[in-house]
Amino acid sequence: MSDDTEQDLGITKSKEHETGEWYAELVQKAELADYAPMGGFIITRPRGYAIWERIQNHLDGWFKDTGVQNAYFPMFIPESFLEREKDVVEGFDPEVAWVTHGGYDELDERLAVRPTSESIIAPFMSQWTRSHRDLPMRLNQWCSVVRWEATETKPFFRTKEFLWQEGHTAHRDEEGAWDETMTRLDQYERVYEDVLAMPVLRGRKPPHDKFPGAHTTTTVEALMPDGKTVQGATSHYLGTSFAEAFDITYADENEEENTAHTTSWGLSWRAMGALFMTHSDDQGLVLPPSLAPEQVVIVPIWQEENKEEVVGYAEEIAADLEDAGVRVELDDRENRNPGFKYNEWELKGVPVRIEVGPNEVDDEEVTFVHRPDGESEVEPREAIGETARDHLDTVHAKLYASAEETLEGEIREAESREEILGTIGQHGGYVKCGWCGDEDCEEPIKEAIAAEIVMVPLDRDEEPIHDECAICGDDAEETAYFAKSY
Amino acid sequence: MSDDTEQDLGITKSKEHETGEWYAELVQKAELADYAPMGGFIITRPRGYAIWERIQNHLDGWFKDTGVQNAYFPMFIPESFLEREKDVVEGFDPEVAWVTHGGYDELDERLAVRPTSESIIAPFMSQWTRSHRDLPMRLNQWCSVVRWEATETKPFFRTKEFLWQEGHTAHRDEEGAWDETMTRLDQYERVYEDVLAMPVLRGRKPPHDKFPGAHTTTTVEALMPDGKTVQGATSHYLGTSFAEAFDITYADENEEENTAHTTSWGLSWRAMGALFMTHSDDQGLVLPPSLAPEQVVIVPIWQEENKEEVVGYAEEIAADLEDAGVRVELDDRENRNPGFKYNEWELKGVPVRIEVGPNEVDDEEVTFVHRPDGESEVEPREAIGETARDHLDTVHAKLYASAEETLEGEIREAESREEILGTIGQHGGYVKCGWCGDEDCEEPIKEAIAAEIVMVPLDRDEEPIHDECAICGDDAEETAYFAKSY
Repeated sequence: MSDDTEQDLGITKSKEHETGEWYAELVQKAELADYAPMGGFIITRPRGYAIWERIQNHLDGWFKDTGVQNAYFPMFIPESFLEREKDVVEGFDPEVAWVTHGGYDELDERLAVRPTSESIIAPFMSQWTRSHRDLPMRLNQWCSVVRWEATETKPFFRTKEFLWQEGHTAHRDEEGAWDETMTRLDQYERVYEDVLAMPVLRGRKPPHDKFPGAHTTTTVEALMPDGKTVQGATSHYLGTSFAEAFDITYADENEEENTAHTTSWGLSWRAMGALFMTHSDDQGLVLPPSLAPEQVVIVPIWQEENKEEVVGYAEEIAADLEDAGVRVELDDRENRNPGFKYNEWELKGVPVRIEVGPNEVDDEEVTFVHRPDGESEVEPREAIGETARDHLDTVHAKLYASAEETLEGEIREAESREEILGTIGQHGGYVKCGWCGDEDCEEPIKEAIAAEIVMVPLDRDEEPIHDECAICGDDAEETAYFAKSY
Repeated sequence: MSDDTEQDLGITKSKEHETGEWYAELVQKAELADYAPMGGFIITRPRGYAIWERIQNHLDGWFKDTGVQNAYFPMFIPESFLEREKDVVEGFDPEVAWVTHGGYDELDERLAVRPTSESIIAPFMSQWTRSHRDLPMRLNQWCSVVRWEATETKPFFRTKEFLWQEGHTAHRDEEGAWDETMTRLDQYERVYEDVLAMPVLRGRKPPHDKFPGAHTTTTVEALMPDGKTVQGATSHYLGTSFAEAFDITYADENEEENTAHTTSWGLSWRAMGALFMTHSDDQGLVLPPSLAPEQVVIVPIWQEENKEEVVGYAEEIAADLEDAGVRVELDDRENRNPGFKYNEWELKGVPVRIEVGPNEVDDEEVTFVHRPDGESEVEPREAIGETARDHLDTVHAKLYASAEETLEGEIREAESREEILGTIGQHGGYVKCGWCGDEDCEEPIKEAIAAEIVMVPLDRDEEPIHDECAICGDDAEETAYFAKSY
C-alpha cells in the first residue's frame, strides 16, 4: 500500500453525515475486512481477526472458569434433524444454505450448513445425560454459522457467514438453568463494559421476539451513534421445550426420570461491528487498549544531527514498555514523516501515541497523546511502564464515559403513540413507555418508522413506568423500550 | 454413565490383534469423540477438543513468534474460483461438497465448501501485495474443511469434515519461500516431538505425490504401531505457480514488477489420531503431560476411621500442585472404590496418579504411579510440586523413548522388489531402497501390498543408499521409503 497518496489512505466520509459509507470505508482502510466475491461474505483480515481473538480469549477464559467445556459438532446438520426441531419451533428454513452434492453425486439427504446447532447438539446431550451426576452439562463451541439473509451486507453487522460462540447447557431444574442464563448474560455485559469499553442495557426480548422455542430470551443492547440499537448478545432460558423434543432426561437420586432444563447463549462478531461503530471517528479506527493489536506506538521525531540520540532514546522506551507487558510498536521508518505516521496509526486505532524528539531526550521526558480526543501530556521518562499503563486505563475510561454519556442522553420517555413516533423520529435512541403486552401495539410504530420493542425489563415484577399502554391506553403490564434496530 | 458396570466402561478389544476395533472403542470410551448421524462425520467431545486446543496453543504461539498473522476467509468458494485454480492443478472436484440452494432459492453459481483455501486466499494476496514492503506476507487460519472421501470413517484419521490450520505465505524470492517451508516443517517436527512425544521422519513426497501445483511437498511421517505410516503434516514450496495463476506480483526497489514465490502448510486433527494410536494401550488412552486435561490425579485411600486425615492430606497436596501450575484432579468420590478410580483415570489417560493412604500420611510421603508402564515410586511429601514436574517430564521421556525405539527398529533396507514385498509384508514399517525416480517402479509394490513411496530424503543431493533401483535395476537417483500408509 506504500505507493498510495496520503489522501487515499485516510477516511474520506463523515461518520455523522454518511454513517454507512463511512463504516464501509473504515473497515477496509483500517484493514479489518474486505468484501468477498460472493455477496454477503467478508474476508476478515489480520487486524480484524486479532481483535476477534482477543474477545475470544477473554470470554473463553471466563466460560472455562465457570464450568464450560469446549467441543466441536459437525458444520452440517441432516434435514431430518432440523425437521425434528420443528416440534419446538418454526425453524430456519428460509435462511438455510443447503449442501446437495458430494463430489459428483447427489446426496440422499440434504445437509444444512448449521444456522445454529441446537438440533445436532441436543440429541447428543440426550445420550450423554443419564444420571443427575452428569448435570450440569455445559458445552460451547467457537465456530462459523450461515444464515442466508438477503439483506445488504454490512461487515460484522450483517453477513451470511459469521463467527460466533454458541453455548448449550443442560441442568436439573429451572433454578439451575435460570442461574446459567444469567451467568452468561453477566459475562456478556462484562465483556462489553470491561473489554469493549461499551455500556449496554440488559433486558428481556418481548414474548413475540424470543428465540424460537425459548421460555425467555435475555439480551444486552448497545446503542450506536446513529441512534439505532444493536442486540449485542443473547442468553436463552429454554425451559424444557428442547429437552422434551430431544429427550434430554436424567435419573435423579431416587432413580426417577426427570426432564432437564436447558439454555443456549451466543455472542457473534457483530460485537466487533458495534465496537468499530461506537468509538471510531473521521480519522479512522478507535480501539480500547484491551483489544488493540498495538497499544502504544512510539514516533521518534529527529533531524539528521540528532537521529542516533532520539531513536536510541525511543528504543529504550520501547524496551521498557515491552518489559512492562505493553504491546508497543516503534515506528522508526525513514521514508515517512511524523505527520504521515500519526495519520496512519490514528487510522489503525492505536490508543496511545508517544512522541519523542530532542527536547524530550534533553528533559528525560516523553509526550503521551490519546487517540480518542488528541489530549497530550508530558510525563517523566522514569517509570514509563507504569505511566503507560495509567494512560491506557485512562483511554479505556474515556471511551466508556463518552459512550455512557451518549447512552444516558438517549433514553427518553413517551406517553402516547405520537410521542413515541416523534421522539424516535427526531432523536433516535430508546423510548420507554407503558405497554399492555400485546404485539399488536408494536405494529403501528413498526410500520411508521421501523422501530420496535427491543426489550422489556429483566425483572418480571418491576412496575411499568406508566399505568397505561402508550399505544392503546389499556392497563400497562410492562415497560417497553422502543428503538430502531440493526 | 455412572450406572454402567465396570466391564462396560473399559476397553474390551486388543490393540495388537484388533487394532481398528480397539481404536474405535478407545475414542468413544475415553470420551474423545462420537460418530455423527451422517457417515464420515464425528462429534468432538470436550476431552478430545481440549487436546486439540492445547495443540493449537503450542503451534499458534510458534507461528505468531515467527511472523504469522491469523485471518479468516469464507467457508464457501465460488465454483469459478476453483476453476481458475485449474490453470495450476487438477483440483478437488471429486471431493467437493456443493452448496446449491440458499433458503428456498437455487443459487446462480454453486459454492464449494472449502476443501482448502488457496483459490480464495490467493486473489486477496494479489490485491494486498503491491510493493516489496508488503512481503513476506504470512497468513494462517484455523478452520474446518470438507473433503468428500467415500472411504470408511476413522475418527480424526479420516473424516469428511476435519479441523486444521492452513498457512499461506508470499515471499520475494525462492530463498524466502523455501526458508518459510522449512521453518514450518521444523515447527511441525517440534510439535510432534516436544508436545505429542512422537518421533517423526522428515522428507519430501516423491514428485508424483506432491500437492497439486507444488514445486516441493515436504512431510513429517509418523509410524503407527500397526506398521503403517501417517502423513503427520505437510509444508509446500509452491514456487511461482499459484502466484502466476492468481497474479501475486510486487514492485521491487527499482519499481520493477516481480512474481512472488508462495508456500502453504497445514496440520490437521489427524495429528490427534496419530497421538491416540501411538501411545494408548488396552487399558485405554495414554496422553503426554503437555496435552492431558488432567496431568495428575490424586486418589486418596481411606477407611472410615482415618478418612478425614487422609482426605485432608490429599487436599493439601492438590493445593500445592495447583500452586506449582500442575493440572490436578482430586478424586475423593465416596461412591467409588480406589480400583474403580484407577481404571477410570487410566482409561482417560491421566499421565501420573498419586496414591495416598494412612501410611503415606504417617510417613509424610506420597506414591507416584506412571500411566504408560505402571511404574510406581514413593517420594517425600516435601517439595511435591517440583517432584511432580519431574515425574511428568519422565512420563513424556518414556513415551518418546518407547515410540523412538519402535520407529528405529522399523526402518529396514531392501535391494529387490521381492525383498521390499517380503519385508513390508512380514514386518510393516519403512523399507528404504534405491529408486530410479520413475513412478512406474512404485506400481508393482502398490498393486501387490498397497505400500507406496511415502517419502524421499529432503536433501536432493543426498546419495542414494544403493546404486541401483531395487525394482528396475536402472541407476538409482534417490533413496525411496516404501510403507503402507493411513
